[in-house]
Amino acid sequence: MTIKDLLESKAELTHDRRDSNGPVVLSSRIRLARNLASYPFPTRANPAQRREILSTCLSTLKDVTGLKTATVFKNEKLSDLDKKILFERHLISRDLMHSANGSGILISRDQSVVVMVNEEDHLRIQVLRNGFQFKNLWRNIDRIDTAIEEQLHYAFSPKVGYLTACPTNLGTGMRASVMMHLPALITLKQMDKVLRAVSQLGLAVRGLFGEGSDASGSIFQISNQTTLGEGETEIIKRLSSVLDTIYEYEINAREKLLESEPIKLRDKIGRAYGVLRNAGVLTSAETMNLLSLIRLGVDLGTFPAETREMVDRLFIEAQPGHVSYLGQKELESEYRDRLRAHLIRDYFKTIAEPDFHSMEPK
Amino acid sequence: MTIKDLLESKAELTHDRRDSNGPVVLSSRIRLARNLASYPFPTRANPAQRREILSTCLSTLKDVTGLKTATVFKNEKLSDLDKKILFERHLISRDLMHSANGSGILISRDQSVVVMVNEEDHLRIQVLRNGFQFKNLWRNIDRIDTAIEEQLHYAFSPKVGYLTACPTNLGTGMRASVMMHLPALITLKQMDKVLRAVSQLGLAVRGLFGEGSDASGSIFQISNQTTLGEGETEIIKRLSSVLDTIYEYEINAREKLLESEPIKLRDKIGRAYGVLRNAGVLTSAETMNLLSLIRLGVDLGTFPAETREMVDRLFIEAQPGHVSYLGQKELESEYRDRLRAHLIRDYFKTIAEPDFHSMEPK
Repeated sequence: MTIKDLLESKAELTHDRRDSNGPVVLSSRIRLARNLASYPFPTRANPAQRREILSTCLSTLKDVTGLKTATVFKNEKLSDLDKKILFERHLISRDLMHSANGSGILISRDQSVVVMVNEEDHLRIQVLRNGFQFKNLWRNIDRIDTAIEEQLHYAFSPKVGYLTACPTNLGTGMRASVMMHLPALITLKQMDKVLRAVSQLGLAVRGLFGEGSDASGSIFQISNQTTLGEGETEIIKRLSSVLDTIYEYEINAREKLLESEPIKLRDKIGRAYGVLRNAGVLTSAETMNLLSLIRLGVDLGTFPAETREMVDRLFIEAQPGHVSYLGQKELESEYRDRLRAHLIRDYFKTIAEPDFHSMEPK
Repeated sequence: MTIKDLLESKAELTHDRRDSNGPVVLSSRIRLARNLASYPFPTRANPAQRREILSTCLSTLKDVTGLKTATVFKNEKLSDLDKKILFERHLISRDLMHSANGSGILISRDQSVVVMVNEEDHLRIQVLRNGFQFKNLWRNIDRIDTAIEEQLHYAFSPKVGYLTACPTNLGTGMRASVMMHLPALITLKQMDKVLRAVSQLGLAVRGLFGEGSDASGSIFQISNQTTLGEGETEIIKRLSSVLDTIYEYEINAREKLLESEPIKLRDKIGRAYGVLRNAGVLTSAETMNLLSLIRLGVDLGTFPAETREMVDRLFIEAQPGHVSYLGQKELESEYRDRLRAHLIRDYFKTIAEPDFHSMEPK
């Protein structure tokens, strides 16, 4: 598989979708940080050691059930644009984009399992799925982790658990997160209140592209902060219960919004559709905010449910790297904004016109 | 004919259209101010005299060829909304809307001739046509004026010409004007320069709704200021020559705009279409500005030529009085803005989607 294949395997991008929280939860992810006992952490390892770690890890990984057909990318073989695309697809981290030689990425055929080698830790094992799917994800990642551990000797302390390069990952080495679409909480200016409550509960909230990114498209990544002193299933249980609450808050906020400003909401969604369908120039930021309104429109019955999948795809495909890829090179932002508008127009030509019947004030 | 008939006689609203300046000149108008020698000016006349003036004028007018089938509205019989509608259609003046009892309006069946009685002067005779049509207009109004003068004794001084209530109309009593659509001059910020030059030439520039109105929709009304010391045909000739120059300026500005910012222009026109086609709420001001972009789009080949007529109709039908009429009463602005958006969406459903082929940068 090449980056091109990866971009073109659209059917496989969205994984399965059996959850009931589709309207609010875009995707779930669990990652484990692991290190080999016999090597220094990646930043301390010399080039020869990094190469050894990479080759050891990759040969083990290729034996794990489900990863036999996975594709391996060596970091130094990837162009900046390739890495940007993998990052925009949430397959690699910002750290890996800039890491030294000897790093690599393994991506399963369906893109639901990604392992980074020699990022901050020797191994960063990640599983992703659309919707709210922690149970499935945990079962899958636990199986993969166990299979690796049967072959490799992890750095582990009976007292603290798995050892990691950064103390914030010590213990379980686990970070579980979901992407949530919270447009109503944003519109009603209740998001700050939610953020405060969430951080008091030891959870972290970030934008669509992780630490330091903004809440573009009203999308938030919510994850556990602590990895120590709690078992994996306990962490997941606690996180899930907070996410359920945020989900309820968002649904209530939507009801309130529909009750108090149905006309404004209908106007905003209509305009968003009109602009996406007809603009000649679209920046990434504007696109995200307009797509967010369309996704809300899907949830409110303005567009058919299939449109949600298109919107979720566009949240990624409208990012700068993906649009540049269409132009076959890194593009100047002005040309990129035109190409983005072209891409979006073509997608929006394929969907039904909005039907605001369900939103008409009684 | 009732106000309802007048609104529904859409076929007759746009008169004929044989001019070559369609892209820039929306409509032309000539009006003559006349007074009867034997009565004081309207503001000085007592109610009985005003009634006499009205009945004398109307009975004379009904005999003039072309006005035999005209409709007469007595001011006191019209509701505020009726008057608002006549004003928005440029059939009556702001003054007449607020004038005392004893005023009246005569409107020819095709709405191309309107005579106001007991406005500022006893008679305000107006002829209107789409496009740049001074020659036809002058021939027509001169004929009507002559026919009236055969029956009635006008206040006239051999030294100054026709006597009028306000000295600014003395002499010919004539005001000739055109409505011009000058979006490129506005966009390139060249309009101030044009306005200065025009006023130095003794012409007046106003917005779509005359004195005190803004340049909503990039539409300007340009007319002669002086009525004294020049014959009617001289005034028209001088005005026409300035209008030709402004026309050239606008066409040049459009070429410049297409050359320097084709992408931005394409984007703005596309968005305007998208918003008009999909918004749930539209204020009058926003509508005018978006329609202006659509009219420019027609001129640039983005929409078929027939769309221009629809846009010109909407410049009037999207005004508050017309929209209120749809709701069958004076409406609160919030509801009116929804009804306007509904009206506009319905109109825009009937036209072809924009085709930007002709605007693609080479």
